[in-house]
Amino acid sequence: MIIAKVIGTTVSTIKDEKLYGLKLLIVQQTNENGETFGKPFVAVDSVNAGVGELVLTCAGSSARQTFATKDTPVDAVIMAVIDSLVVEDEVVFRK
Amino acid sequence: MIIAKVIGTTVSTIKDEKLYGLKLLIVQQTNENGETFGKPFVAVDSVNAGVGELVLTCAGSSARQTFATKDTPVDAVIMAVIDSLVVEDEVVFRK
Amino acid sequence: MIIAKVIGTTVSTIKDEKLYGLKLLIVQQTNENGETFGKPFVAVDSVNAGVGELVLTCAGSSARQTFATKDTPVDAVIMAVIDSLVVEDEVVFRK
Amino acid sequence: MIIAKVIGTTVSTIKDEKLYGLKLLIVQQTNENGETFGKPFVAVDSVNAGVGELVLTCAGSSARQTFATKDTPVDAVIMAVIDSLVVEDEVVFRK
Amino acid sequence: MIIAKVIGTTVSTIKDEKLYGLKLLIVQQTNENGETFGKPFVAVDSVNAGVGELVLTCAGSSARQTFATKDTPVDAVIMAVIDSLVVEDEVVFRK
Repeated sequence: MIIAKVIGTTVSTIKDEKLYGLKLLIVQQTNENGETFGKPFVAVDSVNAGVGELVLTCAGSSARQTFATKDTPVDAVIMAVIDSLVVEDEVVFRK
Repeated sequence: MIIAKVIGTTVSTIKDEKLYGLKLLIVQQTNENGETFGKPFVAVDSVNAGVGELVLTCAGSSARQTFATKDTPVDAVIMAVIDSLVVEDEVVFRK
Repeated sequence: MIIAKVIGTTVSTIKDEKLYGLKLLIVQQTNENGETFGKPFVAVDSVNAGVGELVLTCAGSSARQTFATKDTPVDAVIMAVIDSLVVEDEVVFRK
Repeated sequence: MIIAKVIGTTVSTIKDEKLYGLKLLIVQQTNENGETFGKPFVAVDSVNAGVGELVLTCAGSSARQTFATKDTPVDAVIMAVIDSLVVEDEVVFRK
Repeated sequence: MIIAKVIGTTVSTIKDEKLYGLKLLIVQQTNENGETFGKPFVAVDSVNAGVGELVLTCAGSSARQTFATKDTPVDAVIMAVIDSLVVEDEVVFRK
C-alpha cells in the first residue's frame, strides 16, 4: 500500500456499467510526513474519504477485494483513512 | 487508474484470436489538467472513446473485468470517458 | 500493452518444464514511431513474430491468457504483430 | 520480493473491515547492505517484525497468500525477517 | 521476464511457513550483455541456479506457477538458466 492524499474528484457519464455508483477520487502519493509528490492517479473510495485526507491505497488485483470493488475494472482502491503515522517512535503525522 | 488521453490507433492483422474485434488505442498518461507526459501505451477501448478524449485506464488483471476484455490477453483497458476533473474545489478540466 | 521491437532470442536448457517448447524473445519498448528505448526484457512469442518486427506485449497475469502461455510461469507475452500505428490522423509507423 | 527495513507504524480507525486486526507497518526498500532508499510504503506484517528490522516484502496478488492476508485488500506483506544476506561469498548484512 | 544475475543468498529463520524449504536468492537485473544495473531484489530459485549465473525471472502472480511456488507468498521466481543470448544475429552472451 502507499500513503496518499485525496486531492480531487472525477466525473464520468460514459463508463463501464460496473462503475455505476462508485466514487472515483484523484489522489497523489505522499511521503511519511504527508507531503505529496509525483503524478496524481485515480482510486475508488471504499471508506468515504474526504478531499484533503491522508489515506492508504491498495493497487492491482487486491483493489478488487473490498465489498464495493468486487469484480469491477478498477486497479486502485482507498481502503483506510490514516489517523496518524509514527516513524522511529516519533509521531510524524496526525490527522 | 490513471488519467490518459487517446492519441491514436493500432492496426494488427496477426494477433491472438481473442483480440479479434477489440479496438486497441494508443494512449498517453496526463496530469490532472489533461497535459500528456511519458511514453504512449496501448489499451483496449471498452467505452467507444475517441481520439483526443480524456479517459480513465485500468491496468493489470483488473483490465480483464469488462465485458469486452474477459479472459483476453490484455493488461490495460479504457473503462471511462472523463467529463470533468475537480481539484480542491476548482474545475481543472472540462470536456 | 506496450509497443515493443523484437531484438533477439534467448536459449535455455535448464528451465521450468512448463516452458518447454515456448519461444522466449528479447524485446525492447518503443515509442509510437517504433524507436526503441530502455532496457530489454523477455516475452513469450505467441504469434510467430520475427526479429525486427514491432509487436504488442501484454504483462502480468494477462500474459497467461493465450493458448501457449496458460498456467505457465511467464509474465510477458507477444500477442500481436503491428501493421501500422496512427497518431492524430497521421500514419507514424507502417510495417 | 524486495529487501526492506521497517521504519514505523500506521494508525487507522476508518478502514475496510477485512483490515481489522492487521498490523500495517511503514517500510522502506534497502539495498543488499540494508541501506534504505526511495519513498516509504506500507505492508501488512505477517511475521511479527519489529521497527528497525530488515525484512522481505512480497507485492501484488501474492501478498494475499499468507494466512493473515487471505482475501484482504492489501498489496504488500512482510513474509520473512532477514537474519543475514550473503553476496559473492561475503556476509554483507547480519541481524 | 527480465534477464538477471544471481549475486547472493538470503537467510531467514522467522518466515511464513509456506516459505520453508524455498531457496531465496538475491538477483540483479542485467542488460542483454549480462551487465548488472539497478537495485537487487529477491527471487525464489526453482531451477537450482548458482551464484554468478544469468537467469530469467518472472514476477507477479505468474511467479506462483512453478511447482515449488504454488500458493506461496512470493512475487518473483527464477524459472530458467540462460545458456546464451542472441541479438540481431550476434551472440552477445554465452554461459
